[in-house]
Amino acid sequence: MTRQLHLNAFLMQNGHHEAAWRHPDTDPKRATTLQHYVELARTAERGKLDSLFLADGVALWGNVRYNSHNLFEPLTLLSALAGATEHIGLIATASTTYNEPYHLARKFASLDHLSGGRAGWNIVTSAGKDEALNFNRDARPAHELRYERATEFIEVVKKLWDSWEDDAAVIDKASGVYADTDLIHPIDHVGEHFQVRGPLNVPRPVQGHPLLVQAGSSETGKEYAARYAEAVFTAQQTFEEGKAFYDDVKARLGRHGRTPDEIKILPGISPILGRTEAEAREREAELNALITPEYGVRQLSNLLDHDLAGYPLDGPLPDVGTFTEGQQSRFDLVTGLARRENLTIRQLIERLAGGRGHRVFAGTPVQVADQLEHWFTAGAADGFNIMPPTLPGGLTDFVDLVVPELQRRGLFRTEYSASTLRGHYGLARPATRVKEHAA
Amino acid sequence: MTRQLHLNAFLMQNGHHEAAWRHPDTDPKRATTLQHYVELARTAERGKLDSLFLADGVALWGNVRYNSHNLFEPLTLLSALAGATEHIGLIATASTTYNEPYHLARKFASLDHLSGGRAGWNIVTSAGKDEALNFNRDARPAHELRYERATEFIEVVKKLWDSWEDDAAVIDKASGVYADTDLIHPIDHVGEHFQVRGPLNVPRPVQGHPLLVQAGSSETGKEYAARYAEAVFTAQQTFEEGKAFYDDVKARLGRHGRTPDEIKILPGISPILGRTEAEAREREAELNALITPEYGVRQLSNLLDHDLAGYPLDGPLPDVGTFTEGQQSRFDLVTGLARRENLTIRQLIERLAGGRGHRVFAGTPVQVADQLEHWFTAGAADGFNIMPPTLPGGLTDFVDLVVPELQRRGLFRTEYSASTLRGHYGLARPATRVKEHAA
Repeated sequence: MTRQLHLNAFLMQNGHHEAAWRHPDTDPKRATTLQHYVELARTAERGKLDSLFLADGVALWGNVRYNSHNLFEPLTLLSALAGATEHIGLIATASTTYNEPYHLARKFASLDHLSGGRAGWNIVTSAGKDEALNFNRDARPAHELRYERATEFIEVVKKLWDSWEDDAAVIDKASGVYADTDLIHPIDHVGEHFQVRGPLNVPRPVQGHPLLVQAGSSETGKEYAARYAEAVFTAQQTFEEGKAFYDDVKARLGRHGRTPDEIKILPGISPILGRTEAEAREREAELNALITPEYGVRQLSNLLDHDLAGYPLDGPLPDVGTFTEGQQSRFDLVTGLARRENLTIRQLIERLAGGRGHRVFAGTPVQVADQLEHWFTAGAADGFNIMPPTLPGGLTDFVDLVVPELQRRGLFRTEYSASTLRGHYGLARPATRVKEHAA
Repeated sequence: MTRQLHLNAFLMQNGHHEAAWRHPDTDPKRATTLQHYVELARTAERGKLDSLFLADGVALWGNVRYNSHNLFEPLTLLSALAGATEHIGLIATASTTYNEPYHLARKFASLDHLSGGRAGWNIVTSAGKDEALNFNRDARPAHELRYERATEFIEVVKKLWDSWEDDAAVIDKASGVYADTDLIHPIDHVGEHFQVRGPLNVPRPVQGHPLLVQAGSSETGKEYAARYAEAVFTAQQTFEEGKAFYDDVKARLGRHGRTPDEIKILPGISPILGRTEAEAREREAELNALITPEYGVRQLSNLLDHDLAGYPLDGPLPDVGTFTEGQQSRFDLVTGLARRENLTIRQLIERLAGGRGHRVFAGTPVQVADQLEHWFTAGAADGFNIMPPTLPGGLTDFVDLVVPELQRRGLFRTEYSASTLRGHYGLARPATRVKEHAA
């Protein structure tokens, strides 16, 4: 079988275009119900997609005056979707900066057990300024400190997942032995940030470890991904940038004792579909016309950590200095895009409105499939993070129009061949590392 | 309509009797699947019960060598059950000692939204010794300190739930206004334990506030319940003790500006059912015969914070001193029971095996209904926390045999008349308190 690509559906309430909720195709009140998400999950599963993904933050995002927000907390929502689906992977975002490893190890193990091995964790370090203020702090911890904590955090979580060996649950009614406690070990972790005795109060997850996903694109972020991540979500505007990122991350794996196929790199793409190219572009223009400029300026100001409210919309992006805090890679991407293409603030807002820095591509299903195939076969992607501009319509169109085209080309599965999220991504189940601790 | 009682199904993997998993009626492997819990939830809903409840701790409980443990984390499991049910309330345990208020406010709001107003929170302060060791501590915080933190914790959570006023979500496509930000307020909480700016990143829960449940029976615990709880789970061995507890808690409400009907008191009962009383007793003996004494001794030692491993099983309970740490009320209950009835260690273990200190009653459906009616009409209960000895059988029997008897007597609903958990318990939806903060 030829190498096949992997597809993740990145769900967001009304879609990824910031004006999606205002478009006639969306129903933003229905989008606040569980039923909306059940429908999306089933559509993605009908398309045989590898996984669903939910972003998250622990503060109110952006300006809710002008845009919808994620209503549901990802772990609770994905648990509800676990019962409504059978195959598709379920990836939830959770922060290592504002959580404790015992809780997250437990919750992801729980999601993995109740979904039969379909849980994934998108590890974030919470770059937002506002998040710190909800967790007993006056400011976010510095970038390097966040990653230091994230490193110890994931080590603790993996030890907890391994604290029950695979065969620990014996469940023998006759002898009265429920679990072989010789195979259950405290982890006795004592580190810089955490002191955790363990063991976890849940047997080893179905997948051994739920799938680990990461999206950091800074130097530290890429190094973290190369060490721990098994799938990487990334925002890349051009093929060249995408290829450079892909080669960079894959090249880093060796020094962590990993092979290039142990990590799947999935650039984001927001496909705006039409029967003709003209129809697709018309649809894009329709969405852009619904943008509230005040909202766009505020989002851009947050992204660049620089207040743009006083500048003319149709003038150039002023000097925003150099990166200070937040997401370095997104800062570079946005300022690079503005300079390279000489965009006005309004044009820049429009370019970002579709995917917050992720690539937006308007075209026919065949043109979209061409793009995916090109990046995939020319070494810039192992698959894609699909970010429909509107929901549910944009996902239904992708599943009904683009997926069959990819299947015809032999690039994508026509049936699920595995039962776990790791299985869909072609990744091995980690062996238990517990014996070292037990020695 | 006459006053009606409230029934909660307290779910546990194989049932509440500690030897349940060894009984021929249970299937302990199936009990580790989501489908087991879906079936239990649907059975309880068929019986028109008010709610389901899941206990929890953040360390491995008891000795898993001899007994099953809760596999799933309550919030993730109840989210999965939300999609599988339509009416029944969903009450999850979560600790105020090892969590942050922003996370719990968010997760319970999320469960409330996705279940259409059926979320409840059983507030615990984590008395266990082992839990502290999983959260960067060498020992559990002292009882009073835990309750101090719990008090500030619940105040922060309520402010966060109220940080969006009820009408904040406008969702007007034409004007482009998604939310009226004049109705969304930071909470700017700065206290002894927490500094939280807010607002929450979720609109106000369907119920205003998810139902607040508590089970503390110490002096501080009862005072906390009287101030905040809307339902109270409690372990009471005799009618007299139950009545004294009921009167005590109800009498405390006035000084918190609350009326007695604002709190529902639900003593636990594990009903062991038989077609005849003899059959019920035989079933109880059958379960007790499956107890592993080593397990019972260990559980009892933990409960009393006193190592009983060296004492003869058929001798009396030795002097265990006075209460030191852990659960004062459970210590008093257990030592009181042993002294009052002159029980040997083995007999005490058998008495506790059915419900860990909760009342066990073996009898016919009519006898069980008589007991419930007596406690209910004579002022010792507003309803009951039903703890089936085995699952699913014990719950199915209760629903099929006892519920119809209660319905015939006019003591229990024959159909749901409300759509929220608060509605089932006859409790009002709290008005938003946000205006005070906004002034």
